[in-house]
Amino acid sequence: MDCIFCKIVNGEIPSYKFYENDKIIAFLDINPDCDGHTLIIPKKHFTDLDDIDIDTLKCINESAKEIKKILEKKLGCAGMSLIQNNGSVQEIKHYHLHIKPYYKNKKSIEMIKYPEFINDPKDIYDKLKSSK
Amino acid sequence: MDCIFCKIVNGEIPSYKFYENDKIIAFLDINPDCDGHTLIIPKKHFTDLDDIDIDTLKCINESAKEIKKILEKKLGCAGMSLIQNNGSVQEIKHYHLHIKPYYKNKKSIEMIKYPEFINDPKDIYDKLKSSK
Repeated sequence: MDCIFCKIVNGEIPSYKFYENDKIIAFLDINPDCDGHTLIIPKKHFTDLDDIDIDTLKCINESAKEIKKILEKKLGCAGMSLIQNNGSVQEIKHYHLHIKPYYKNKKSIEMIKYPEFINDPKDIYDKLKSSK
Repeated sequence: MDCIFCKIVNGEIPSYKFYENDKIIAFLDINPDCDGHTLIIPKKHFTDLDDIDIDTLKCINESAKEIKKILEKKLGCAGMSLIQNNGSVQEIKHYHLHIKPYYKNKKSIEMIKYPEFINDPKDIYDKLKSSK
């Protein structure tokens, strides 16, 4: 199956992966809407909310709780949206949960409208991996 | 505690509730972004993703799976976004998961920009409760 997210899971395509357990990985979106825009995906291929089993969903939610804390600590965000799309509004047909952090500065809260304020995911990745 | 969602759970404030189990209720947003815009909330008061326990989250996800099927069957939507906001982007400080259906018609996919195309939640509620 020619799934880009399966290839990221298998390491065939590189990613800014910063979190992993037996069921899921989390990595920075390469085309972010905001600094720290993260995707959590199951290692096993599931299409969408209908397809994914409840134990994997539970694991994704547990991981989201932990990743929220990491992003807050490392990036100092003030808010966070979790978004999961299905059907006509889902681009890649491998279940994924977006985590989008927001910041106190109003411009950065509406970063999606101001792409010039978004940093390179590589720089965000370095921040996430730093020991500070 | 003066929480509007706790009052909805307790029946002190009316709502277009169309789904319920021991842990959660689901009702139509009174100020919808699109037809069938639904909120799933836990009956017990939790502030956000940090606060809510994993068993309640699991139940919310199980319910989201079922509610997705109800909205598809009754409203004929083609896609669906699940959105959960925290911190600076969260208006009501009682955990809630938005379910926003989208439709094939392009205008209705971007309904949030075309409020004139959104139906009264009462009419959507009647559709959801009908036996058809």
